[in-house]
Amino acid sequence: MVSSGSRSAEMRERILVAAAIEFAVRGYAGASIALIAEEAGTGKGLVQYHFKAKSDIALELVRSSFSRAPFANVLGEAASIHGMEAIVASIRGVAGAFRDDVRVRAAVRLVREYHLIPVALPVPYVGWVARIGMLLREAEEAGEVAAGLDHDLEAWHLVAYFSGVQEVSNRLTEREDLPQRIDEMLARALPMLGVTHPERFL
Amino acid sequence: MVSSGSRSAEMRERILVAAAIEFAVRGYAGASIALIAEEAGTGKGLVQYHFKAKSDIALELVRSSFSRAPFANVLGEAASIHGMEAIVASIRGVAGAFRDDVRVRAAVRLVREYHLIPVALPVPYVGWVARIGMLLREAEEAGEVAAGLDHDLEAWHLVAYFSGVQEVSNRLTEREDLPQRIDEMLARALPMLGVTHPERFL
Repeated sequence: MVSSGSRSAEMRERILVAAAIEFAVRGYAGASIALIAEEAGTGKGLVQYHFKAKSDIALELVRSSFSRAPFANVLGEAASIHGMEAIVASIRGVAGAFRDDVRVRAAVRLVREYHLIPVALPVPYVGWVARIGMLLREAEEAGEVAAGLDHDLEAWHLVAYFSGVQEVSNRLTEREDLPQRIDEMLARALPMLGVTHPERFL
Repeated sequence: MVSSGSRSAEMRERILVAAAIEFAVRGYAGASIALIAEEAGTGKGLVQYHFKAKSDIALELVRSSFSRAPFANVLGEAASIHGMEAIVASIRGVAGAFRDDVRVRAAVRLVREYHLIPVALPVPYVGWVARIGMLLREAEEAGEVAAGLDHDLEAWHLVAYFSGVQEVSNRLTEREDLPQRIDEMLARALPMLGVTHPERFL
C-alpha cells in the first residue's frame, strides 16, 4: 500500500520535473504555474499546495541541482577516486548532467536569469571552484600536477574555461558536440597544470 | 545650422543608447518602449517612428555591436598589427568593450536571451572564431606559434575560454576583476598554442 506521504512526495517530484522542463525550454519568464501544472498532468491548486510561488519552484530546482553530484559531492559520491582523476570525472560529470538532466539544464538557465527571479538563488561557480581547488591540492600531494600551483586560481580557470565551452557548444550545436569539446578542453587544460602524463587521466 | 536629417540621426543614436541601458539592466523582457523613451528623454511616438518594435531595437543593437571592432574588424581598425599581437589586442579589446560599452553589454545580454526575442539575431561566436583562426594562420607564418596547429579548433577554444572568463567574472564581481582574469587567461592560453615567448605579447 502506498502511503499518502509517499504519494505526496511523488507528486512534488513530478511537479519539479515538469517545472524543469518548462524552465529549461521557456525560461523563467515564459513558464507559469498553469503550464507547469499542465506538464505535470495535474491542477494549479495542487502545484500551489506544494510550492507557494513560481520563484519557490525555481529556488528548489537550483538548490537541489547544485547540492548534488557532480557539482558538489564528487568525493561523497565516488570516494574511491581522488586528485586529478576526480577533477576529470567531475568535469565530465557536469558536462553529462548539462546534456542529460533536465533539472540541471533548468537550474543553469534559471541561475543565468537570476535578475528576473524575486528570490536569492545560490551563487553559481563558487562551490565547484572550492571543490576543484581541494582536489588540486590532493593532486599536488600525489605528484600528479606541478608543485607550487595556486590551487584556487587554477580551479577558477578550469571552471571558467568549462563554462565557456559548454556555453558555446550549447549556442552553436545545442550541446551535441559537448563531449568532444570537453575532451579537447582537457587535452589543453591538463598540460597547463603541469600534468606530466595527461593521457593517464583522459 | 543642423539639418533635420542629422538631428534625426542624433535622436536615433540617443534612442539606441537609452535602449542599451534598459536592455543591459533589465533584460529584454524587463525593458519597454515606454521605459526606453523615458530614458532617452523623448516620447513613445518618436521611438516608434525610428523603430517599429522593441525587437527591432534589439536587432539593431546586436548587429551594430557585432559588426564593429574589436569583434570583427580588428584588421580593418588596426591593420598595423598582425598575428599573435592582433589576437591579444582583440581579446583585450572585447574584454574592455564588455566593461565599458553599454551597447556591447546590452548586445551580449540580448544574444543570451535570444529565446525571448521574436526576430532572428546574428549567431554569436562564429565571426570572432573565424577572425581569430585567420590571425592564428598569420601567427604560424610569422613563426609565433607552434607549426601544424588546427587554427579553427584553437580559435574555438580561445573564444570559449574567453567567454567563460567573462561570464564568471561578471557573475562573481560584475566584471571588476576582468582585466586581471584576462591576463591570467592569456598567460595560460598562449603556452597552449606553443607561443615560445608569451611575455613578448603580454
